[in-house]
Amino acid sequence: MRWSSFFQTASKAFHQSPSWSKVLVVCTVSGGGLVAYADAGAAQSANGGDRCLKKKKVVVVGTGWAATSFVKNFKNPSYDVEVVSPRNYFAFTPLLPSVTIGTVESRSIVEPIRRIIRKKNVSMQFTQAECYKIDAKNRKVYCRSPEDSKNGKREFSIDYDYLVLAMGARSNTFNTPGVEEHTHFLKEVEDAQRIRRKVIELFEKASLPCVPEEEKKKLLHFVVVGGGPTGVEFAAELHDHVHHDLYKLYPSAKEYLKITLLEAGDHILNMFDKRITEFAEDKFKRDGIDVKLGSMVVKVAETEISTKERGSGKLVSLPYGMVVWSTGIGPRPEAVQFMKDIGQGIRRAISTDEWLRVEGTDNIYALGDCATVNQRSVMEDIGVIFSKADKDNVGKLDLDHFQEVVGDIIERYPQVDLYLKKKQMRNILALLKNPQNNNALVDIETFKSCLAEVDSQMKNLPATAQVAAQQGQYLADCFNRMEECEKYPEGPLRFRGIGRHRFRPFRYKHLGQFAPLGGEQAAAQLPGDWVSIGQSTQWLWYSVYASKQVSWRTRYLVVTDWGRRFIFGNDSSGI
Amino acid sequence: MRWSSFFQTASKAFHQSPSWSKVLVVCTVSGGGLVAYADAGAAQSANGGDRCLKKKKVVVVGTGWAATSFVKNFKNPSYDVEVVSPRNYFAFTPLLPSVTIGTVESRSIVEPIRRIIRKKNVSMQFTQAECYKIDAKNRKVYCRSPEDSKNGKREFSIDYDYLVLAMGARSNTFNTPGVEEHTHFLKEVEDAQRIRRKVIELFEKASLPCVPEEEKKKLLHFVVVGGGPTGVEFAAELHDHVHHDLYKLYPSAKEYLKITLLEAGDHILNMFDKRITEFAEDKFKRDGIDVKLGSMVVKVAETEISTKERGSGKLVSLPYGMVVWSTGIGPRPEAVQFMKDIGQGIRRAISTDEWLRVEGTDNIYALGDCATVNQRSVMEDIGVIFSKADKDNVGKLDLDHFQEVVGDIIERYPQVDLYLKKKQMRNILALLKNPQNNNALVDIETFKSCLAEVDSQMKNLPATAQVAAQQGQYLADCFNRMEECEKYPEGPLRFRGIGRHRFRPFRYKHLGQFAPLGGEQAAAQLPGDWVSIGQSTQWLWYSVYASKQVSWRTRYLVVTDWGRRFIFGNDSSGI
Repeated sequence: MRWSSFFQTASKAFHQSPSWSKVLVVCTVSGGGLVAYADAGAAQSANGGDRCLKKKKVVVVGTGWAATSFVKNFKNPSYDVEVVSPRNYFAFTPLLPSVTIGTVESRSIVEPIRRIIRKKNVSMQFTQAECYKIDAKNRKVYCRSPEDSKNGKREFSIDYDYLVLAMGARSNTFNTPGVEEHTHFLKEVEDAQRIRRKVIELFEKASLPCVPEEEKKKLLHFVVVGGGPTGVEFAAELHDHVHHDLYKLYPSAKEYLKITLLEAGDHILNMFDKRITEFAEDKFKRDGIDVKLGSMVVKVAETEISTKERGSGKLVSLPYGMVVWSTGIGPRPEAVQFMKDIGQGIRRAISTDEWLRVEGTDNIYALGDCATVNQRSVMEDIGVIFSKADKDNVGKLDLDHFQEVVGDIIERYPQVDLYLKKKQMRNILALLKNPQNNNALVDIETFKSCLAEVDSQMKNLPATAQVAAQQGQYLADCFNRMEECEKYPEGPLRFRGIGRHRFRPFRYKHLGQFAPLGGEQAAAQLPGDWVSIGQSTQWLWYSVYASKQVSWRTRYLVVTDWGRRFIFGNDSSGI
Repeated sequence: MRWSSFFQTASKAFHQSPSWSKVLVVCTVSGGGLVAYADAGAAQSANGGDRCLKKKKVVVVGTGWAATSFVKNFKNPSYDVEVVSPRNYFAFTPLLPSVTIGTVESRSIVEPIRRIIRKKNVSMQFTQAECYKIDAKNRKVYCRSPEDSKNGKREFSIDYDYLVLAMGARSNTFNTPGVEEHTHFLKEVEDAQRIRRKVIELFEKASLPCVPEEEKKKLLHFVVVGGGPTGVEFAAELHDHVHHDLYKLYPSAKEYLKITLLEAGDHILNMFDKRITEFAEDKFKRDGIDVKLGSMVVKVAETEISTKERGSGKLVSLPYGMVVWSTGIGPRPEAVQFMKDIGQGIRRAISTDEWLRVEGTDNIYALGDCATVNQRSVMEDIGVIFSKADKDNVGKLDLDHFQEVVGDIIERYPQVDLYLKKKQMRNILALLKNPQNNNALVDIETFKSCLAEVDSQMKNLPATAQVAAQQGQYLADCFNRMEECEKYPEGPLRFRGIGRHRFRPFRYKHLGQFAPLGGEQAAAQLPGDWVSIGQSTQWLWYSVYASKQVSWRTRYLVVTDWGRRFIFGNDSSGI
């Protein structure tokens, strides 16, 4: 009775006063975490209605990692923010491979963007539409609502003062014929759902009466193209799902199943440390996943995939049941058009400066997979750096004077710092003094020759969720402190201009990268080139992925999904 | 440390020995229930492979309530069972309205049929295919696998010794033009998912810039056709979802939203007690759900639904955003063809006798929504009943002799019992003795006139999950005890033949019916015409629906889904 009356009281409190604070402590065995939820029932923000705005307007295109991180961290009430995207939710994409086999529910990894932008002080609104054209000259984006047979498409334009492009990228097919038509990508939640249904469908097809052996082998041949983290994780998860769950329900499938991983390079996971690569390749070998290295896909037909071996040039055709294509990303058509319009030409991604501003524009920013930060090389600016340091304008650099701009150089050109670290030097002066330059005065030629190799340390940032999220946060911080930094600029010296940059340039901080390998084994490359492999790394993976969730809601859902899977295994219904 | 080592040990135990018994006690606050899970890790049954069978073969068509209940309870190892259905899972359909708004995840209410048929002693297999033709003469069903662009359809036939038809029904459109094309049904899990996405899509469309007021009103007009339990529950759940979740995220929608419930009859929930109907209509009025009684839908166009008012014959056109059609069921095309083939003509459902055997066949059974039990009327058999009771063959009934067959009559003709109860009589003799028949001998005419009205108590069974599940269990029990009952028949006397029926006829036991009305209010009509309305009924609903789940897995999933919803509300992402 005491319990039941507790439930009744609790239920009343929950339902009669939904705006009360709800506090629930959920002890999750699986995640091993303590999750405390407190929702202060934030009052309704005035984010609807009135569109006659006087504040400056920031339009954000996209609801992926970069855009969501941007709007989540945006706090400046002197702007109006409008988010435009064909997807009205943020998806925690690193868990997509888990969704393909049902370890995590598709809806557990998505958070409606409208929940994220519901804020007390900042007016934010969302419009579900695809942005198909950007008119930088007239500060407009052209949008159309998603197709709908009954209500048609609606086209409209939105004016902006600042534009934040974070529309992401598309899967790169490298123009391989048949890829669009016959393979499955793994970029969107819908892709993961489709893959899930397809796997079960193939197992059912192979179990029909009177299916010849050859046909069964074909149906149950799963091909993964691309040995990056996504492809590897999908292959591993599929292997686990098949062995733990599906073989029990489809015992005859055991004889016919095959998983093949095709990688054009020399190794899978080639962005990782060699130890991880080796461990993964060994593990896959033991698991019976056929890893074909140096295999370039040249064509995908309806029932066969053709590859060319790199060394021998031999052409091989493999009959398949399903192909998952995960070979990297390319620019989306609207990004290509935009790059043409602003004169960037056809590139892999939209070029920005270190402050994430699109090169050739002054009020458009680009973040995440659609963008690439174009680092400035020291050699390009060597002359202006020298003359800025040469205060007396004598054509020789006094190292004492030079010391004043050292901090700015290192901030503006991070490759200098990386180079010094690589050479195990304490500071830039050691570089200039070395090798035999004991003279306190350095001329431009010596200066050039000393710094000649620093630009070799410039690296493009990887197209990962981590980079996108950090960029979003960085840009939001810039907007949050816009007024303050206009007055008191905090960035480095402008070598090619007067004064200082308003903000410090974006600097990516690598926190490590995971590669789950199945069988409760994972590998991780942590900062400082630390490598961790094994079951403990899998637990680290669980905790990091739980902590990185965008909301307490999805955190709770994902952790309980893991718990469900722990107890009951994965589902195999064709839903 | 102690906890973490517990987790590690537990995790090891779970993963290294997946076949060990797992015992988990989960205390669910939301359901208020104690769920104990014990899976003895049933050894793999030999349900694959060899199709050269010598045992008699039972083919079951369908994976709905009736079929699943049948295979779940089937225990006789002297048969081979093959289940054929285009859906490889059982869906807990009473929770479909909850899936439409995301209270419960679609995959929480489905259980793969292959898990259900995995048994230690009985060989059962599943084939994912649609049965499109039944050849009763040659004891074959013709099947085709689901369509698939790459692998084509595969057609094949399956031989049977016994056939159990439980393919369910389709939504009945009453040939109203436009219904198939423009409305949403709510029969399958996919329907619920589609409705869910459509609701969010309409809210997003109505929030686009520059949408005129009229258009917003149209987009946010949700029409539910049919005031049965499903339609009513959907309307109520939609209302709750909109008020609790969506208004927070789409504040401008408040002014435009409308929910209309169209019912052709005089009242909604007209199969329920008057008190429930009144309560529901009042509640909907308070909630602002527009209930239009006596409204017949005559046409559904792309953006308008046309109705005719019953009294006045007035035609009304309502612009709408979405129509959910839930007006009852009709026979599926393969059932129609089968009825024609066996000479039953075109009817609402396949006719069976009280032992669920299809009339006109001797080895085909039909259960659930595709079938109707054709009760035998007393008047039809009055002559043979009389002569069976008249042992001495004197043309007069000695009531002492008659007493010997009373039990059989009541078992064979349940309407007799219902009639006696209605008349508040103790037994059938009271009926014959009454009114002035003090003579111990009764002639045929008196016998006839005394029993003249009993057949008025014959009722068709409702097309509910409850009936289907009981029928499945009944038929499985018959098969389980087939050998035993062949030897020792336990059914009533054969009035038109010699000896006894093998089995007792199927008798439906009504356990009550729920109608959830939203706002944590539900109504229930319990056996004995008890009526329960209110929040406590909603809790009863939770516990009954949790207990009726087909597996511990789905029970756990559904209960934790309710818990999730309790804490975080419903999701609104367009997935």
